[in-house]
Amino acid sequence: MPPVDRRVLLSSGLAAGALAAGEAAAEAPGGAPLIHHVFFWLKNPGSKADRDQLIAGLETLRAVEVVKQLHIGVPASTEKRDVVDNSYDVSELMVFASVEDQKRYQDHPLHLKFVADCSHLWRKVVVYDSISA
Amino acid sequence: MPPVDRRVLLSSGLAAGALAAGEAAAEAPGGAPLIHHVFFWLKNPGSKADRDQLIAGLETLRAVEVVKQLHIGVPASTEKRDVVDNSYDVSELMVFASVEDQKRYQDHPLHLKFVADCSHLWRKVVVYDSISA
Repeated sequence: MPPVDRRVLLSSGLAAGALAAGEAAAEAPGGAPLIHHVFFWLKNPGSKADRDQLIAGLETLRAVEVVKQLHIGVPASTEKRDVVDNSYDVSELMVFASVEDQKRYQDHPLHLKFVADCSHLWRKVVVYDSISA
Repeated sequence: MPPVDRRVLLSSGLAAGALAAGEAAAEAPGGAPLIHHVFFWLKNPGSKADRDQLIAGLETLRAVEVVKQLHIGVPASTEKRDVVDNSYDVSELMVFASVEDQKRYQDHPLHLKFVADCSHLWRKVVVYDSISA
């Protein structure tokens, strides 16, 4: 699929969307969809330039073919509750067709370049990888 | 939308899907889509019965109208890396059309019932709420 089509796919509206099907009937060939959610804590959380640079770096990852969806976020202003962690600065939610595709992404030159270019910006990163229960 | 249609929507295939559009052009009326990702650590992680009960409880939340997408997961078998936290037992990824809808969900009787019925199962829960950067 050309990059433009994928960008349209990635930005299609909420009403028409579904993340990754949990039900067996919708499993992609080769495995079950994998949700990869990453949270970054910046060394300089007050720096808009650093935040923008990290976000721009994450945007380059859309070009990785195995990345089916990418959503770059910041903490939402939901109600304060003890269980809510809004201390992070930037989040990255990706969907892959399989565990194997996520591994291909980890080894992809664009991902390696992203880490080389941007890892100096964060002091902490936490990754959660999940598959359908 | 009748529940059956929503269930089809929620389980539609990966190729056709998109989570919540980040771009302004795809903002839902009333606000930007909100991603609500919750991780549960069971008191008895070895208990399949407890895990199944928690998953069944989470399934009841599909009936909450403002929940646009729900994906219930368990840790994936991705490569071991220091930054990957696979210590949790069950995850819940929801998408709402707005911050306000997430608040309606928090106050919804079905959500309150879920917490009353299932909170004894977990020892720890962490919530990340994010909106498009």
